[in-house]
Amino acid sequence: MTHTTVTVLGLGSMGSALARAFLAAGHRVTVWNRTPAKAAPLVTAGARQAASAGDAISASPLVVACLTGYDETRRVLGDVTATLAGRTLVTLNSGPPGAARETAAWAAEHGIRFLDGAVKDVPDAVGRAGTLLYYAGDATTFAEHEATLRALGGDTVRLGDEPDLAKFYESAVGATLLPVLVGFFAGAAAARERGIPVAALAPYAVRWLRMIGEVLPVFAAEIDAGDYSAGASSVDLFLAGADGDLAFLRESGIDDAWLRPLHDLVRKAAAAGHGEHSIAALTEVLGARQEAQPSRCATASSVRPAP
Amino acid sequence: MTHTTVTVLGLGSMGSALARAFLAAGHRVTVWNRTPAKAAPLVTAGARQAASAGDAISASPLVVACLTGYDETRRVLGDVTATLAGRTLVTLNSGPPGAARETAAWAAEHGIRFLDGAVKDVPDAVGRAGTLLYYAGDATTFAEHEATLRALGGDTVRLGDEPDLAKFYESAVGATLLPVLVGFFAGAAAARERGIPVAALAPYAVRWLRMIGEVLPVFAAEIDAGDYSAGASSVDLFLAGADGDLAFLRESGIDDAWLRPLHDLVRKAAAAGHGEHSIAALTEVLGARQEAQPSRCATASSVRPAP
Repeated sequence: MTHTTVTVLGLGSMGSALARAFLAAGHRVTVWNRTPAKAAPLVTAGARQAASAGDAISASPLVVACLTGYDETRRVLGDVTATLAGRTLVTLNSGPPGAARETAAWAAEHGIRFLDGAVKDVPDAVGRAGTLLYYAGDATTFAEHEATLRALGGDTVRLGDEPDLAKFYESAVGATLLPVLVGFFAGAAAARERGIPVAALAPYAVRWLRMIGEVLPVFAAEIDAGDYSAGASSVDLFLAGADGDLAFLRESGIDDAWLRPLHDLVRKAAAAGHGEHSIAALTEVLGARQEAQPSRCATASSVRPAP
Repeated sequence: MTHTTVTVLGLGSMGSALARAFLAAGHRVTVWNRTPAKAAPLVTAGARQAASAGDAISASPLVVACLTGYDETRRVLGDVTATLAGRTLVTLNSGPPGAARETAAWAAEHGIRFLDGAVKDVPDAVGRAGTLLYYAGDATTFAEHEATLRALGGDTVRLGDEPDLAKFYESAVGATLLPVLVGFFAGAAAARERGIPVAALAPYAVRWLRMIGEVLPVFAAEIDAGDYSAGASSVDLFLAGADGDLAFLRESGIDDAWLRPLHDLVRKAAAAGHGEHSIAALTEVLGARQEAQPSRCATASSVRPAP
């Protein structure tokens, strides 16, 4: 492996993990953080600490930024765009796809080569063989730095040219996180009320998630085909279970405000005629197309003009 | 294996799967369904069809009921309690723990031996080695029928004596299902709006669920210990991401009404002083104990009497 030079800006827990993984892979690493003290453990581990973001950038052709968001990234880099020009900036902060697009436009404006990425794991997992990182942006830029970036995780994937794709996948895939956790914590709260250790419940919850995971590709195929007729887990079945779900939380003294809007979606799908369809038909009532579609489907012959 | 005689009441998709699994294991199976036509495929497969619920019950020492709920079960069996007395009734319908307790009391009143269970899988999985079924109720009754019941799934677990434990675990563990699905369908709807096949997203979503699953035992330990200080995934971190989550859905034209109450819980936890704590601290704001606790903690010395 060729050892290269890389700069890491932003040394929160994720930024520090990134710098450490580059060091572990034998790269020369320059770090910068607004609060300089955070760099100390990395300097001990062999990193060079720069006095300013500009100094840090000028040390490397590859600059990895893990600041608190895109606004902060553009603020920090706003004064040093001339230094960044011609180098590659990789943003690994979190944020919505729109902000990644804005940052890509800003980078293009200043002649900065740009990739956006997302670490699909916890800081502790950075650098491991199985750790997944998404990237989006120009194929040539990615190819040039891929070997270096691979130090951050063995499963390094470029999703495409569009600069917001990493954040898009991150957001779309990540949309299950808070819902899963709230569902689990509600069950955990109920167990605790009952005097059952949550640790006794957890192995079943883990297994249950794995089972749900196995069905997602089936639902994906239904959604892509727009065909929900194979309704083994039907909307009506979920509707029939709704009262029981609420009764369980009520019996256990657990707040149910988080669950009611989920039931509303099930009811909305049933009302839209999806009762006997697969629960994947919820996609139809969640999406923007639900209102656009009827008018799109209406042809001249099927629309009766007002008299 | 000893082949025994078993009766199955209720031949919906799950009931039919149960009967088929008993037949496949070589048991003599008597079936009954309110709509007799549903028994036809099972009769072809070797089951005996009874003309009434009472006839079906009198054929076997073990009666497995998979009717549409506990109310329906007690309604169907209300006239034949004398026939059921001394036999074992196993309810495998869905429903809340309270209804399982009521049914256990009703069974005890009529001298019916009773077990309640839950199939933690789809009908197609019934009978497989890896399929999980929970049971709750008397240990002797369970031991007597365990070998027969094992025909329904290789992973047959008795959770304890209390007759509602299977439904309790079912509800508590199952609380993640609808949340996960809605999160996934929201991401899927966004992908579809963007022109990305949901099938391209699904493998990452499956993997993401597996990763979330790996963290649940850690959260369980935090909840059991009541110690949320190791906040790698802190409440504040989720709070910081909330606007981005909403921006993503808004950009994609996806309904966010299901997400806002989840953010409310995160905000509530932060307001309760859990900002820097693990996200597992949401358990504290979901549970009934949240209001009781402060008064419990208040000791005579810490409460200043009004002047």
